[in-house]
This record gives sequence, C-alpha cells and structure tokens, in this order.
Amino acid sequence: MKHLISTLDLNRADLEQLLDLADKFAGVLRRPIPKVPALRGKTVVMAFFEDSTRTRTSFDLAARRLSADVVNFSVSQSATKKGESLRDTVETISAMGIDAVVVRHSSSGAPRQIAQWTDASVINAGDGWHQHPTQALLDAYTIRKRFSALDGLNIAICGDINHSRVARSNVDVFTKLGANVTLVGPKTLMPPDTSDWPVELASDLDEIVRDLDVVYLLRIQQERLSSGLFPTVREYRSRWGLTTERAGMVSPDALIMHPGPMNRGVEIDPEVADDPRSVILDQVAAGVPIRMAVLFQVLGPGQFDPVTEDNGQVHSGTRSKSTPTSDGERLAATNQLEEVS
Amino acid sequence: MKHLISTLDLNRADLEQLLDLADKFAGVLRRPIPKVPALRGKTVVMAFFEDSTRTRTSFDLAARRLSADVVNFSVSQSATKKGESLRDTVETISAMGIDAVVVRHSSSGAPRQIAQWTDASVINAGDGWHQHPTQALLDAYTIRKRFSALDGLNIAICGDINHSRVARSNVDVFTKLGANVTLVGPKTLMPPDTSDWPVELASDLDEIVRDLDVVYLLRIQQERLSSGLFPTVREYRSRWGLTTERAGMVSPDALIMHPGPMNRGVEIDPEVADDPRSVILDQVAAGVPIRMAVLFQVLGPGQFDPVTEDNGQVHSGTRSKSTPTSDGERLAATNQLEEVS
Amino acid sequence: MKHLISTLDLNRADLEQLLDLADKFAGVLRRPIPKVPALRGKTVVMAFFEDSTRTRTSFDLAARRLSADVVNFSVSQSATKKGESLRDTVETISAMGIDAVVVRHSSSGAPRQIAQWTDASVINAGDGWHQHPTQALLDAYTIRKRFSALDGLNIAICGDINHSRVARSNVDVFTKLGANVTLVGPKTLMPPDTSDWPVELASDLDEIVRDLDVVYLLRIQQERLSSGLFPTVREYRSRWGLTTERAGMVSPDALIMHPGPMNRGVEIDPEVADDPRSVILDQVAAGVPIRMAVLFQVLGPGQFDPVTEDNGQVHSGTRSKSTPTSDGERLAATNQLEEVS
Repeated sequence: MKHLISTLDLNRADLEQLLDLADKFAGVLRRPIPKVPALRGKTVVMAFFEDSTRTRTSFDLAARRLSADVVNFSVSQSATKKGESLRDTVETISAMGIDAVVVRHSSSGAPRQIAQWTDASVINAGDGWHQHPTQALLDAYTIRKRFSALDGLNIAICGDINHSRVARSNVDVFTKLGANVTLVGPKTLMPPDTSDWPVELASDLDEIVRDLDVVYLLRIQQERLSSGLFPTVREYRSRWGLTTERAGMVSPDALIMHPGPMNRGVEIDPEVADDPRSVILDQVAAGVPIRMAVLFQVLGPGQFDPVTEDNGQVHSGTRSKSTPTSDGERLAATNQLEEVS
Repeated sequence: MKHLISTLDLNRADLEQLLDLADKFAGVLRRPIPKVPALRGKTVVMAFFEDSTRTRTSFDLAARRLSADVVNFSVSQSATKKGESLRDTVETISAMGIDAVVVRHSSSGAPRQIAQWTDASVINAGDGWHQHPTQALLDAYTIRKRFSALDGLNIAICGDINHSRVARSNVDVFTKLGANVTLVGPKTLMPPDTSDWPVELASDLDEIVRDLDVVYLLRIQQERLSSGLFPTVREYRSRWGLTTERAGMVSPDALIMHPGPMNRGVEIDPEVADDPRSVILDQVAAGVPIRMAVLFQVLGPGQFDPVTEDNGQVHSGTRSKSTPTSDGERLAATNQLEEVS
Repeated sequence: MKHLISTLDLNRADLEQLLDLADKFAGVLRRPIPKVPALRGKTVVMAFFEDSTRTRTSFDLAARRLSADVVNFSVSQSATKKGESLRDTVETISAMGIDAVVVRHSSSGAPRQIAQWTDASVINAGDGWHQHPTQALLDAYTIRKRFSALDGLNIAICGDINHSRVARSNVDVFTKLGANVTLVGPKTLMPPDTSDWPVELASDLDEIVRDLDVVYLLRIQQERLSSGLFPTVREYRSRWGLTTERAGMVSPDALIMHPGPMNRGVEIDPEVADDPRSVILDQVAAGVPIRMAVLFQVLGPGQFDPVTEDNGQVHSGTRSKSTPTSDGERLAATNQLEEVS
C-alpha cells in the first residue's frame, strides 16, 4: 500500500488488516510511554488546504507516536496565495525530501492528482464530497469493537448524503465488511442517482429506527442551511434528527455515531449525544490507532510486531533474555527496543 | 497536584515547593544539553483561545525541555468556529489521549470548567480577568532570586488592577509568601470592592514610591484607552507611569518589574525599562523553569532528582559509579540518564 | 561564524566551506534515517515576520535533521500586533534561552539589527530587497553540482533586479565563485546605480541568451504589476520572459533556474519550467542540506565528521571496531552514534 486515497482501492482483506493493525497500536497507546520507533527518521507533512482541527491533530498525534517528524504546511502562508499552482506547490514540498503527505482539500480528487506529482505517499484526509477514508476506518473500528464484526448489522446513515464524503466512504467500508446500509435524509440532500450504491433508501428515520444496530448521523454544514435545498432547522430536526423521543425507539444495544463536530439540537439532541449508547468520543479515540495503522502501512518496515517494537520500558522481559552478541544485533536491538520522541 | 487553575488552590508550602523545583530546572537549563527525559511520551496540548506568543512559546519550550510532545491546537482552524461547543471541543481533544492541556481563554473560569470535561491535567495560562498562575510564580521566583525571600518586602502593583489577571494572581502569591502589597492606579481602574483583598491602596505612585522594594507595573491594554474609564495617556503616565523622574525616587536596591509586552512611554518610560534595576527580561527567563516545574508537578513521576535525571552528558560521573546489575535497573538507568529530544 | 546575515560577510573560502559541508549533509539525507544528533538540545526559533512556506519549511526540516528543537514564532499572534517594539519582542524570545533565530522580515537590515539585541545566532532568511544568503548558497550549490565549479560560467539574472534580495545575494556569491554575471531586465526595474556591482548589463535577453551557461529568472511580484514601473505582462514576457521560443536559443547544456514560486506564463513559459534543462526542483532540494550546513556552522560543535556523526544504523562498521572502554568514552560514543528525533 503506497497511498490511501479512496476506500474503493481497498478490499475486505485490506480493511481487516488495517483494523487488526490498529488494534495492535491501541495496545501500544495503553503503555506508559505510548510510542514506538517504527517511523523514526520519516517526515510526514500535514497539508490541510481546508480547515480541520480534529483530523489534523489526530494524524499529528499518530505520526508522533510512531516517532515520525511532523511538518505543518500552513496554507494561509503558502505560495498558493501568491498564485503558485497546486502542482508546483506539491512538487516543491516533495523536492525537500519528505515521506508522506496528509492532504485535506475542498476539491474532490485533489489527493489522487497530488499522488501523480510526488514520490511521497499520499493520505487522503478528506477531499470535497468524495472520500474520507480514515473516518470510515475509524468508524468501522468503533463498530467492530462493540459487535466483533459488521456482518449482518443494520446501519442507517442519516442526513445530507449528497454533500458528504463521510457517507461515501462509510457506505463503501460498511458494506464491504458485510453490513446492510440504509441512507435516510431529505430528498433534496440525496445523491441524484443511487442506483449503483449498495444501499437501501428511506425517507423517514421513524420507518427504520427500531431495527437499527447503528444510527450514524451526519453533520449539517452551516453553508447548507441557506442553500434552498435545506428544509427549516425545525423540520429537519423533527424528521431526520435523532431527538430524545426518537432515541427512545432505538434499541438499547444499538450505537449512536457522529463524525463531529456536532450541531447539538439540529441533527442530534443534546441529551442523545451524551446517551450511554453514544460512541461519539470512542470514534475520536479510534482515530489515533487507525491513523497509526495507515501511516505504518504506507511508510513502515513491513510487519509490525508489538513485542519487539517495544519502547524499552514495558515489556522489559523481552530484552533480558539475551545480550546481543554482535554489533549488528546490538544495533538492531537498540533500534527496536528504545524509544525516541 | 492534578491541575494548576488558580493560585488560590496553593498554600505557602505548595508555592515554595514549586519555586524550589524551578530552581532545580534552572540548573538543568544551564547544562550543555538542557533537557531531561522526565515527561517522555507525555503529550501536552497548547489550547490558546486567545492570542499569546510569549506565554505559549515559554510553555512550549518548557514542555520540550522535559521531552514531552507538544501539539498546538489552532483556534482559528478549530471546530469552535464551526459552532461546536467548548465542551465538545475539549472532550474531543481529550479523547485523543493527551496528558495535559495548557489553556488560555478570554473567559474567567474557562480552565476550571474544562477540568470537569477532561481527564487530562489542566494548566491555566491566563483566563479573563481571573488568574494567571504561572505569571505570579515566575514573578515570585524572580523576586526571591534577588532578595532570598519575599517576607516583609514592600511591593506595589500599579495600573489597571480591575481588568488584570496578573494583579489577582500576584497579590495572592506575593502576600502568601509574606510580602506587603499596595495597589496603585486610577480609581476607575480599581476593583469596585477590595475589602477582602489582603492589600493596601494608594491613589498616587509618588506617595509610596520611596519605600518600595518592588515596583510592579501592569500593561495598559489598548482596548482600555478608549473605554471612558481611562484618563488620557499623558495624565496616566504623569501620575501612574514609572517615568524617568519618578524612577529617580525608587531605591537603588529595588526591582522594576513588568509582565510584558510593554507600552514604552505609557506605563514605563523607555529608559526605565532598560534601567539596571529592571528585571523584566529575568521575568521572561524565569518563565521556562517555572513552567517546567508546573508541568513536572502535574505530569511527572513524583520527585525530581537532577543528579539521576541527567541527560547523559554532563554529570557523567554519576553513572560511572556502578553498572546496573538487573535488567530492570538497567532500564531505569537508561531511562533516567539518556536524553530524548 | 556566529551569524549569517549577508553574503558580503563571506569570502570565497567561506562559501566553499559551506558548499562542501552541504555536500556531506546531502550524504546524510540519503541514509535510511536521514538525521544526525549534531544539534541535540539546541533550540532554533523561526521568526517569519513575512509569509513564506518554502523557506520556513526548508529551515524547519534542516533543523530537525540535525536534531535541534524548532519553535515557530507566530507573527500573527505576536506581541508586535499589540504594539511591542521589535527590539522588545526579540529580547523577550531571546531571554527564554534559545540558540538561533531564523529571521525573515520585510525591512532590509532587520536581521543585522536583531543580532545586536540577542546572544543567539541570527540567520537571515530574506530581508526586504537586501539579502537572502541561503538562497544564493543553494543556487551556487545547484550550479556547482552540474558544472563542478562556477569559474568562468556565464550567468544571466533576469527580471526585477532592483526589488530583489535574491539578485543581490546571488550576484555577490556567483561572482565571488568566479562566474561572469549579466543583469537583464526593464530599465525601470534596474537599480538606479550599478556602477559598483561586479556585473555586465543587458536590456534584452535575446542579445545574450545563446552564450549563457545559466539563465536565472526572477519572480515578478504581484504588487509590481500595478506599480507603473512595470510594462504589460505581455510585453514583459515577450522581451524578458523565458518563452518556449527563446528557450530554443539556450544551449542544450545550460541550466534554467528560478527561486520560486513561479508565475508560469509570465517570467517563464509553462513548458520551459518543465524542460530537462530546468533545475528548479534541484534548487528546492538543495535548500535542506545548505540550511543544515548553515545551522551546523553557527551552532555546531566545530568539525562535522559524517562517519562518526552517524545515526547508529547505516555505517555500523564504524562502531564495531572497538567497544568503548571508559564510561566517558561510552557516553561520547553513545552521543555520536545514536540518533534522536
């Protein structure tokens, strides 16, 4: 895996391998010193052409926990402001000798384009309405953690499907992992043609809400509110929002999910966001090991072995077994066992 | 000590312990490699909801000198701009697995609130008119360095007391450490009721200036100038500014202090800022060891021992004494002695 | 070398020493882990008072590859916005205990001034129309790489010479290294008096283009377009731009250079930027080892030896020769051989 641009490039086995790897990294994160030297000396550039705190910070933490160097490429200070083309900007960063670039861009397809202009690995952190692969992975991870597997689960994704990269990535990942996905939302916010989407459609949340294992609510973008496509906030909430009343109809074993940031009182009632069935913060927490898994997959030395890839502190037993004898072994051991920050 | 939110939560012994610890860290900073591995693997988030270069940079340096990872949470890019509540923002950062959050916020009380929403340690880097605890600590450190102790010293804090978190924190810390504090300034800029403040009041600096051991000048905020509460700049300078003339009346052994950034020519004359009695840059310098002490106190492994917490370069004698025998000992030693950056 | 403020402070031997050192660091950058511990524990502040992505990122990467700590001083959040003088800002950063400050400023001479206010080393990353020393060094490095030496080469620098710090630095460095430099551009954009510049002048690129070893095109700043000094874009391109047609007259062995960001279609035609003779991305790539050389020169421990300054991974042969015997030796070895990130 050289890039992660779209979930469409991954099959079920690829997805499961990433989720399994994330599980190992979740174990690393529970250590007293939650770091491994796996990407020591690698440089990851955060190129966010569109604002984002949660995704950028999550990738940043993931990269550091793998001992990579992180360079923030500030768009507001960038040469694009001076009229430089995206291609020249990318080729310039790339010429400085970097290993991966994490891209968020308002144009669908920008990361795929960028991958043609650089030797570095490109990771899509959200492009236009197109894809947000690490969001789908962390969502699948969160669901799998509760239900062991997604096979046969009934998942509804509710809201502004048409303008949502989260919906497109999640439909693909959830269905590849065996779930049944239903899309719910105002007709004006549905994709014009869903004939080749592997989903069911519903126009009211009430019709299906009792049979769901997962209710996945999308964020209503503020720019949508004044678009003419959008009903009033009151109407939206009453038909497609997860109100307290409607949440009462959801199974006690179901999960309530949201990619954040939430508009409490619009797509989700304030109390529902804090309901015991809500795993919204678990989704955030899953972001770090998922992004570690992705970075490791595209940049790492191959297999990850959490026992030898120790930080030299926790599993001290592993190094007491023998003193490395040759110099090469000693170096290798040093490398595997010690931590850098 | 889990958080540092207000100096009011600290008694004299706590304050002295922090100042003593800062002294040890000042020793670390004089080493060729001014770092210790004490907070290796810990993540500190800088959440500055209000602009600040000096305080943010000082905390940033302090965290790095302790080998912590520092993540800057950019407010301009943050989800708060997208309408997310402060609580959701805090819970989100917190879910990513961080250890401490350094908060500056324009609302008094925000850090205390935030501490209820996260398991991480919260350090107040200034909130509204309320508190700026590390400023008070570094000021006390600077004074103690010159006078050995604050007991019995006469300190005047001069300027816009009412809108000053620095004044509130410093009054508390200075008086707990035994100093006599007098507040001076225009009546319109004094707190409406100071009956329970442990201070004297004066309306003219001239009345008291000859008897002071410390003249502490507050910054006049630009937004205050047009507030109606403020006299003209010329009048302010002539009655409450430390002019060259007035500085002539200050004892040769006294200290002149200012938290910065200065308005030279308003609260302090340009020449006075550079007077030999001015310790304004010493205050800045004290910021790093003070913030190291605070971070260590809330996140560190307990006692700090600067001999064993060596960076492996300077006090090499300490490790030649014995070779650790067990594997555990060797690991502990490695950990204590080696540096990470 | 304490500072790098102007190329005028360097003689030919100094320049060659920096280029040779950059060559060694280019070797480090080809290692699997492209880092050395040379500046471990040193703190480098990036103080960019004017926007720049490429230069800031290049310095940032260079500092990290030397294991220095990098602190970004954000101008938009800085106290200068609050009316603090540049001197107070500099003295404040400096009091925090830093080792070098990399300065970009719109005022010619700012870095020289700053060097009088701090004990830290000052590196000029571009000041006004004055100097951009690391740009000239990386350009000379790029040319030397292709031609072994600059002696006797014919180099034209073409464009807005008068407002260009790049032109001023490059004229000085190129001529000191033995090249013949010709300046070309509209009369209105030439310096009023070039009598003491060691250059030839030409008013048309066509006159000289066939005899050049290097065609160096300057960026046309957007603010210049509406200045009255500037011809139309169409006229500029046709007389001083490197059009496809004109590029056909350039020798097949010549180099085409540009400091970036390019205005494709103004000073350089799009196809010419991608011509095999274009070394524009090589210039960018050269920035990292050149800035490593400069940082090492002002902050490093003296001589750089890439064999002992190993990261402990690649040249493992060097350490197998002997096991250090004394504790001191072992520490020194640890220090030289191991990598920190």
